[in-house]
Amino acid sequence: MSRILGVDPGSRKTGFGIIEMQDKQIRHVINGRLMVGDGDFADRLKQIFEGLTDLIQRYQPQVMAIEKVFLHKNADSALKLGQARGAAICAAVSQQLQVAEYTATQIKKAVVGNGHAHKSQVQYMMAIMMQLSDTPAEDAADALACAVAHAHHGWLGTNSKLPAGMRTSRRRGGRYSR
Amino acid sequence: MSRILGVDPGSRKTGFGIIEMQDKQIRHVINGRLMVGDGDFADRLKQIFEGLTDLIQRYQPQVMAIEKVFLHKNADSALKLGQARGAAICAAVSQQLQVAEYTATQIKKAVVGNGHAHKSQVQYMMAIMMQLSDTPAEDAADALACAVAHAHHGWLGTNSKLPAGMRTSRRRGGRYSR
Repeated sequence: MSRILGVDPGSRKTGFGIIEMQDKQIRHVINGRLMVGDGDFADRLKQIFEGLTDLIQRYQPQVMAIEKVFLHKNADSALKLGQARGAAICAAVSQQLQVAEYTATQIKKAVVGNGHAHKSQVQYMMAIMMQLSDTPAEDAADALACAVAHAHHGWLGTNSKLPAGMRTSRRRGGRYSR
Repeated sequence: MSRILGVDPGSRKTGFGIIEMQDKQIRHVINGRLMVGDGDFADRLKQIFEGLTDLIQRYQPQVMAIEKVFLHKNADSALKLGQARGAAICAAVSQQLQVAEYTATQIKKAVVGNGHAHKSQVQYMMAIMMQLSDTPAEDAADALACAVAHAHHGWLGTNSKLPAGMRTSRRRGGRYSR
């Protein structure tokens, strides 16, 4: 059994989703958001770091999958995102997790079959694929999708079996951190 | 006795400097750079996080002082700096350190008496103030200067005594994280 933690970091909300791969099947474990409020920035980074560390210790994933960020338009938001990303990655590496990055296009292709799919389609597909009773929040859905992209990438040496009729991309191209 | 860790984070090199305040005197403890190379970004963040965690555990500072970053011109470098900053701050908060931020102007004023001083002046002044036999590297000097700015700010409830003839600013205005 292998578990993948997908993360969608943000300086106010950080989405997370954990999936499990067993017998070539993907199973949903948990998804949600760390709401780190609008308080002091160092305290927010602490909440991201500690919240993800707690999740990792509790659910024991082996890998963190995270969206690869390209050139941001706004330098101020790039700095904030960078800090949140740094905190998330530190939580992973300090718990000996591998870190894998996927572009937004790779993630959308993996879960919707279209690299330019709308965010609401990702939410919808995650609810179906993970057999959730409620549609996950946008950032939690993005985090789950990131984990699914990693599963499809075959990092763990398995090929996930998707529910019948579900399109997906198995195109390789993710970049691993180590 | 109180110790302050100053940090100048960067995605390739992270400067650090630890000073000690005792009997209203500032004493140099250690300064240097974490050279995190040009390898994979997650591994570099891990090196920053673990390197600073190791320093904190070894030297037991109570506070981390870090330069406050304003709007960056380049979004790509802002993202990289943000990640390095996030890793540095996580190392501090996960070891229960307070985090204090100072603007570049506050730091330069504190150590050179001129908010627009050149970086080489900061290096020169740090070598004198800390009674170092060698001029510290630019980022290590910046880290030490950040720690000195914090000492002058009076966070620890003491007023540092500077060597005779040394100008400094005691203007308040640093912002604390929590």
